[in-house]
Amino acid sequence: MTAFKAPLRDMRFALHEVLDVSSHYAAIGRSDLNAELVDAVLEEGGRFTAGVLAPLNRSGDEEGVTFNNGEVKTPDGFPEAYRQFCENGWASMTGPEEYGGQGLPVSMAAPFHEMMMAANLSFRVYSGLTEGAVLALTKHGSEALKDEYLPKLVSGEWLGTMCLTEPHAGTDLALLRTKAEPQADGSYAVSGTKIFISGGEQDMSSNIIHLVLARLPDAPAGVKGISLFLVPKFLPTEAGEPGERNPAVCGSVEHKMGIKAAATCVMNFDSAKGWLIGDENKGLACMFTMMNDARFQVGLQGLGIGEMAYQGAVEYALERLQSRALSGPQHPELAADPIIVHPDVRRMLLTQKTLVEGCRVLAYDAALALDIEHFHDDAAERKLAGTRAALLIPIVKSFLTDMSAEAANIGMQVYGGHGFIREWGMEQLVRDGRITQIYEGTNGIQSLDLLRRKVMGDQGAELTRLQDEIDAFCQQQESNVALASLLTPLLSVNAHWRSLAADIMQRSAQNPEEIGGCATDFMQFSAYALLAYAWARMATVAAKRAQENPEDVEFYQAKIASARFYAERILPRADMHRQVLKTPLDSLFGLTAEQFVR
Amino acid sequence: MTAFKAPLRDMRFALHEVLDVSSHYAAIGRSDLNAELVDAVLEEGGRFTAGVLAPLNRSGDEEGVTFNNGEVKTPDGFPEAYRQFCENGWASMTGPEEYGGQGLPVSMAAPFHEMMMAANLSFRVYSGLTEGAVLALTKHGSEALKDEYLPKLVSGEWLGTMCLTEPHAGTDLALLRTKAEPQADGSYAVSGTKIFISGGEQDMSSNIIHLVLARLPDAPAGVKGISLFLVPKFLPTEAGEPGERNPAVCGSVEHKMGIKAAATCVMNFDSAKGWLIGDENKGLACMFTMMNDARFQVGLQGLGIGEMAYQGAVEYALERLQSRALSGPQHPELAADPIIVHPDVRRMLLTQKTLVEGCRVLAYDAALALDIEHFHDDAAERKLAGTRAALLIPIVKSFLTDMSAEAANIGMQVYGGHGFIREWGMEQLVRDGRITQIYEGTNGIQSLDLLRRKVMGDQGAELTRLQDEIDAFCQQQESNVALASLLTPLLSVNAHWRSLAADIMQRSAQNPEEIGGCATDFMQFSAYALLAYAWARMATVAAKRAQENPEDVEFYQAKIASARFYAERILPRADMHRQVLKTPLDSLFGLTAEQFVR
Repeated sequence: MTAFKAPLRDMRFALHEVLDVSSHYAAIGRSDLNAELVDAVLEEGGRFTAGVLAPLNRSGDEEGVTFNNGEVKTPDGFPEAYRQFCENGWASMTGPEEYGGQGLPVSMAAPFHEMMMAANLSFRVYSGLTEGAVLALTKHGSEALKDEYLPKLVSGEWLGTMCLTEPHAGTDLALLRTKAEPQADGSYAVSGTKIFISGGEQDMSSNIIHLVLARLPDAPAGVKGISLFLVPKFLPTEAGEPGERNPAVCGSVEHKMGIKAAATCVMNFDSAKGWLIGDENKGLACMFTMMNDARFQVGLQGLGIGEMAYQGAVEYALERLQSRALSGPQHPELAADPIIVHPDVRRMLLTQKTLVEGCRVLAYDAALALDIEHFHDDAAERKLAGTRAALLIPIVKSFLTDMSAEAANIGMQVYGGHGFIREWGMEQLVRDGRITQIYEGTNGIQSLDLLRRKVMGDQGAELTRLQDEIDAFCQQQESNVALASLLTPLLSVNAHWRSLAADIMQRSAQNPEEIGGCATDFMQFSAYALLAYAWARMATVAAKRAQENPEDVEFYQAKIASARFYAERILPRADMHRQVLKTPLDSLFGLTAEQFVR
Repeated sequence: MTAFKAPLRDMRFALHEVLDVSSHYAAIGRSDLNAELVDAVLEEGGRFTAGVLAPLNRSGDEEGVTFNNGEVKTPDGFPEAYRQFCENGWASMTGPEEYGGQGLPVSMAAPFHEMMMAANLSFRVYSGLTEGAVLALTKHGSEALKDEYLPKLVSGEWLGTMCLTEPHAGTDLALLRTKAEPQADGSYAVSGTKIFISGGEQDMSSNIIHLVLARLPDAPAGVKGISLFLVPKFLPTEAGEPGERNPAVCGSVEHKMGIKAAATCVMNFDSAKGWLIGDENKGLACMFTMMNDARFQVGLQGLGIGEMAYQGAVEYALERLQSRALSGPQHPELAADPIIVHPDVRRMLLTQKTLVEGCRVLAYDAALALDIEHFHDDAAERKLAGTRAALLIPIVKSFLTDMSAEAANIGMQVYGGHGFIREWGMEQLVRDGRITQIYEGTNGIQSLDLLRRKVMGDQGAELTRLQDEIDAFCQQQESNVALASLLTPLLSVNAHWRSLAADIMQRSAQNPEEIGGCATDFMQFSAYALLAYAWARMATVAAKRAQENPEDVEFYQAKIASARFYAERILPRADMHRQVLKTPLDSLFGLTAEQFVR
């Protein structure tokens, strides 16, 4: 089984060489976050995730969580690892400074979170949602609630959950039925059943703070009648310690395909005491303020799984001796050649590598937009960056998680029969990663969000701004002859992207069903276009740096060769999606619902 | 959880209406296999698989096999179901008549086997390899061995295994080390360790007959020094009953991602008594005589998983109420619309449907070729059909199993969060089906086999014959205006297929690495071309039958609409593979082995 190694060199390349984070931090008033500090955090993060979390990944999967009469036991080692996670300050990285957090930008935390996902996705599930709860509470909570709960949530002493889904209400929250009755003391009595609640119950933190969507008695029907409530497991005492047990109880845990070490709970609220967050009937809006960040996190999950699958596949392909190269033995001194000599194995590894590394630049670039949205002095800049983040994040969430499924399955395939055996670790990546395409909004929903809200919502203005940037980049590099073979396909895919978007917006204005008919293919097309841009940027930087930094020339040459592989052998997928996007909608409606049953 | 229903209507459509099996059976001298008999077998098979095997699928997965001191316990219900399987004659369908089998052609058994895969893949693993053992023994065994073992293997009283893989020798059997020492009594003492042995030990049959690849003491190195041996678990007594225990012992069972109810064993042979099958040093050739049939079976496994995933997804999409159609409520009387109204859900279901149904025709068509190869009176016909089967089967094995992974993952995705939960059954399809892309030769190996042995092996002659048939079909339907929108893309993809094959053969003659560089994309391209042909045939038949058989018009219209979906929204994938196949090989070799490690 491959031991996780934090991909520090590649992360530094993306952060410093491609994205120039130092200039970015200066622009958001955080010159203190210099390159040395960034690298120190990366290295320390690499040590923690590889040393503490990765060793608990397979044992956590084998042991799973156990449920007994409302209590959940997490796998051996999880509570202790979580204690270290908090003690070392990893829990509070992005938390607001006034509540004890370190107030770091998203882009500082993202590589660390990516490492966590690669090392132990289940473990990350517990703290990931807490950060979302902190965001929602910070933005919408009353001062009293913030003072009472934020310090403990930020430090990690208490963990948080998001309670949205009900058995009949998943994607469609309009259907939710959980009720909140106002009480004389200003609190609410929350009653209902929530499902799929990650970390709804666990033994890692001394209290659990649930953020719960529910309806007030007089609430209008549909999504305009949903409010957000804070419901603690234990009501805090005056001293701020966990006090009386609130009737917010785990009824059972789900038995799942993967992330078995993460407790996925059915939560029963039986007149549990809660407090309103934000305005009445504005609960969905409160939840949505943290949606970008939460979906970004799920994208990072995909990235981490993809990275780990690539590492495992490369290690095995270098070691496993099987058959000779078609053109004759490459290592006659060995019993057979290592399988990395075979072109079909190289095809698989390069597919993983170019997807993972391209997605890394895409994700970190989105993180910069989130940073600016959260931290820039200038409101106009914040707004622009927020629009950019909003455009990119459904792509990051859906494409990076689709990518992770492909990369993980390739990893398994490279291992052959051993890939199917649990002890080798590759199949766990397939199982664990699979949920990322589903939760926090399925990838189909992300694609709808992209096309309907993010592209059509401003008549394509932000998308055009992004496409203009890509054209400007190409123009700037026009004289760079070495890059011609990358710039031509990039210009072409960008031009197609523009005309596709215009065409789809026009068709959708006439028939809204077109949005649903185009959404997934348009998301995929957009992602492959963005990865072409990311690879052109990487190749440009690599060509320059190879001359400035000759001792690292192997790394840079590999980047340039990978960029070419991407352009020649992955980017044609965009064209396939384009062909599909040009076909009429009606082939999706050629069958009645009944005709699907034969 | 969706209950499996045998897709009898679709099977009958493929067998009778598209492939006209009655004429086919007449041509191979089996006019006794009339349509009524075929349908009766389908119905009885549907009852058995849905009634007996499907109910053990999830419990088998949950319970798995247990290993204790060399013994394996299969899940509750498996031994009893196996007893019924034999008693009802399902074990002996294709077995030779002189040894008590029913001697049925492959195409009669294939739909039943497909149902078994859909209902309970793990269960099928035990008997599937026995049929392979019967084939190998029938073709290569001595009369004495055949008389002693075949009756019990054909009836199913004893089960068989295939012992090929060793820890260091999977794809590359040249490396295998298991030894066979000749003994004075004409037997051999077989010693070595084999891994990944399906059904190596179990409690379903009173004896287990291992077919083992091993080396004689004086054998040449490599694949030319491998012989095949029959090694029983219990040496038969004079009366043919299981007697003395042979030291062929299960050392452990693997813990796997899926097919957990199928025992995957490490087998230790410690001077176990065995007998040579076929000639010395010709063991690989003996194994290969049953390879087509075994790989065909794995293709059917993919088909069954895909079918089950489609059934599950359709059922859920019809029942699950969530959100309203983008163009407004379709079922205002309900709390929300069933998700089948959403175009993105339809896209997923139609992708499953067109892949599964197209693959069914492709697989059954390959079965007809196997029938003719095995049963036709005319040697020239047998040879031609054998060449056709040899060409099609690596495609059937690899594409149908890749397809099953896509269909199963779509099934999960349609279920949303519930898809990830074990009790809903969809995630088991993903886990169980995943092995089919790996075992019996990984799909990468299948693709190499297709291009190197089956296409280049006869300089493209058989492929050209197939492509000529497709053109002839198009010509024949030229005046069929209703089909124009299907024939144009079919003619186009067929023409591209010809020129790609010619181009690749030429490049490969110059550089054999091209074979490995092109193999997977060429296999995929070929499969999409064949599915375009299958869908054009289905649409042609459906258009005709809709007039002859108006009470079934809904079924036929669905076929025509599905054919259009395939041509417009799936077939563009072929073009993507074509683009990749036109790129130079060297982007696969741009990185040294070391440069993959960052």
